[in-house]
Amino acid sequence: MSCVFCEIVLGRVAADVVYEDERTMAFLDTRPLFPGHTLVVPRVHVETLGELDAALIEPFFGASQRLALAVQRAMGAEGTFVAINNHVSQSVPHLHLHVVPRRKGDGLKGFFWPRTKYASPEEAARVGGAIREALL
Amino acid sequence: MSCVFCEIVLGRVAADVVYEDERTMAFLDTRPLFPGHTLVVPRVHVETLGELDAALIEPFFGASQRLALAVQRAMGAEGTFVAINNHVSQSVPHLHLHVVPRRKGDGLKGFFWPRTKYASPEEAARVGGAIREALL
Repeated sequence: MSCVFCEIVLGRVAADVVYEDERTMAFLDTRPLFPGHTLVVPRVHVETLGELDAALIEPFFGASQRLALAVQRAMGAEGTFVAINNHVSQSVPHLHLHVVPRRKGDGLKGFFWPRTKYASPEEAARVGGAIREALL
Repeated sequence: MSCVFCEIVLGRVAADVVYEDERTMAFLDTRPLFPGHTLVVPRVHVETLGELDAALIEPFFGASQRLALAVQRAMGAEGTFVAINNHVSQSVPHLHLHVVPRRKGDGLKGFFWPRTKYASPEEAARVGGAIREALL
């Protein structure tokens, strides 16, 4: 089974690489939301954030932090959107963090989806309890 | 100047706290995209990812990784959306990472915005070069 991001990491598929170190690589998304849209990937193949080895958290997100600053500066943007889709809406099953340059009025809207509310404080407390339990 | 997330961290404003350690805290978003939508914040006040101290990268994203797994499990979801808005579309100017449970067919669509293309390989190379320079 070939993974296109592994192929990029191995240099077998061309990409506009903007950053690389021993454990992390970053390259332009070929179908950007806006020019400068960058994908940060660990060199090792893991599918989602949940599977990233603890030892790779700092290198991966440290590089992502640097890239968020660099993409904003390089594109003359006012901010960035930094996101990971795990499983659902994930186009390539190799963990990748999107860095998208943002500007006010760029048409992407605050949070892009309608927000809801909890029916009651008790409903929120119940949901919070379920998450706390899942952390144990 | 009061910051509502600092107030939550200090226990002066109520929140459905689902996780806390010495440097990080997580609580339910009161206007969730879906129930279980959680915000992860550093206890220290920084505005965006770019200002997060290097020493806090591992604690912050390590906790975020745990929460992504816990939110998915607790809500019986198929995946998660993990995102940070820096400056633009950022409702509270205290760094916060959204963890949103996702399901196929939940109506949020792949990437929520129309994607574009670079006009030419040269255009992509120029943009990539600008980002590489901004990293120096």
